[in-house]
Amino acid sequence: MNLLEGKKVAETIKEELKLKVDKIKNTSHRTPHLKAVLVGNNGASLTYVNNKITACKKVGIRSTLTQFESDITENSLLEEIKKINEDNDIDGYIVQLPLPKHIDEQKVINEISPQKDVDGFHPSNFGKMALGMPTFIPATPLGIIELLDRYKIDTSSKQCVVLGRSHIVGRPISILMSQKGKNSTVTVAHSKTTNLQELTKQADIIISALGIPEFIKDDMVKEGVVVIDVGITRVTDKTKLKGYSLKGDVDFEAVSKKASYITPVPGGVGPMTIVMLLYNTIRAWELNQKSNA
Amino acid sequence: MNLLEGKKVAETIKEELKLKVDKIKNTSHRTPHLKAVLVGNNGASLTYVNNKITACKKVGIRSTLTQFESDITENSLLEEIKKINEDNDIDGYIVQLPLPKHIDEQKVINEISPQKDVDGFHPSNFGKMALGMPTFIPATPLGIIELLDRYKIDTSSKQCVVLGRSHIVGRPISILMSQKGKNSTVTVAHSKTTNLQELTKQADIIISALGIPEFIKDDMVKEGVVVIDVGITRVTDKTKLKGYSLKGDVDFEAVSKKASYITPVPGGVGPMTIVMLLYNTIRAWELNQKSNA
Repeated sequence: MNLLEGKKVAETIKEELKLKVDKIKNTSHRTPHLKAVLVGNNGASLTYVNNKITACKKVGIRSTLTQFESDITENSLLEEIKKINEDNDIDGYIVQLPLPKHIDEQKVINEISPQKDVDGFHPSNFGKMALGMPTFIPATPLGIIELLDRYKIDTSSKQCVVLGRSHIVGRPISILMSQKGKNSTVTVAHSKTTNLQELTKQADIIISALGIPEFIKDDMVKEGVVVIDVGITRVTDKTKLKGYSLKGDVDFEAVSKKASYITPVPGGVGPMTIVMLLYNTIRAWELNQKSNA
Repeated sequence: MNLLEGKKVAETIKEELKLKVDKIKNTSHRTPHLKAVLVGNNGASLTYVNNKITACKKVGIRSTLTQFESDITENSLLEEIKKINEDNDIDGYIVQLPLPKHIDEQKVINEISPQKDVDGFHPSNFGKMALGMPTFIPATPLGIIELLDRYKIDTSSKQCVVLGRSHIVGRPISILMSQKGKNSTVTVAHSKTTNLQELTKQADIIISALGIPEFIKDDMVKEGVVVIDVGITRVTDKTKLKGYSLKGDVDFEAVSKKASYITPVPGGVGPMTIVMLLYNTIRAWELNQKSNA
């Protein structure tokens, strides 16, 4: 069994991106700038945003956080989004989800300028991704592709089973794995799938984004399978100081004995996601330079 | 075996659409208007366009054809597209593909106003489709969904294998079948898929869009399978006056003996495609009314 060490790979990519940012700083008067927009005080959201900001600092990307009260109206938020779109000093930005219930998330996403949409959630970017055109690809699927590439895992003609059909992970990774380039034969399983074990047992590659801790057991996979575990759930654990431990969708101890490659949780897909956001931000800087040239 | 008679269903839908158009004519001073843009004199393209225009007439939709010489420059064509976008009297339009080689098709598609893009090929419409948002859905996949609905075929939790990953059929139908609503467990097979027979033999529903005549034989399918045959290829046939007959991807005679439902070729998916273009055109008229209100 080989670990797919996302954390290590992410560190390597960060070094590469830092070199790129250093070069930009030497030749341009403007350093790439990522803004994070946060509405309310959700603890998990704040942690995610802070992780992203810390990562930015490490590679030399400027980052700013704009926080709004949880009772901001939808209209006011949309107005703020428009201002960010027009601010040439912001190359890319993310609106941390989830938003409070009185705000229509899709309406907000639709308002983000596609040129600054480093999360790749805007329909026109999502469409370009699905059509194989150059665009911002959502960070988690992009991180998975990058991880497979760095470990030189052959995906062509392989049976790939994706668990989950979310807009953020399942749907985009299923499309990317199926496109020219990766060339896997992809099956998307979801809550209405009834023969899951049959599917996963046939799979050469399993990409799981369910959010159900230790759902995939060793009797569900075949010898030599490649396992990408996107799930990360807090499970009560009194032996830990924090009172919980983080669990993936996969029963790591058992499944790792049969897998040829497997991502750990934490330290697998998570760090790759953050670093791909940085990658997208530098890309957004390049687009911004061009459109202001 | 039951035939999925696309031709018959399409006639029924045309009658429904005609009633809708009649109602529009009684209440509005503007009848829905579809424009077809054709570059060059490709015989097959001209036939397709003419079929669409004839269908428009049947339901009372106005249709116009704008033809350009095959040597029109890309820039001139893009300028013409812009004019059509701005013409409030045109509700929806299609640019018949393929375009001559010196013109970048994607560039032209990107220029079509998403509000008038009744083919559903623009990235922002394609993205909305993939994200499950209301939009123009490409006519062939939309026709397949409608055909399954009209025959009340249960797709939830079924194994669906899609053959082909084109932007026009394979990719969008695989997404639609997998989304909430249809809820199938979908596998996309393509030219790099090596275990095709294994896949098709497990399938409850096969949707084939390969364009390889009579590729799918009876030993590739299971008893009771639902077969949607999107392929339509001219095969030399000296017993016919025209010198050819039209063949689907499926060996109809053999496979129909095992299938529970199967589309004939011709008379299956083809007529559904045309009628869904009319459906999209009426939808475009509604959008146009709203945006000019």
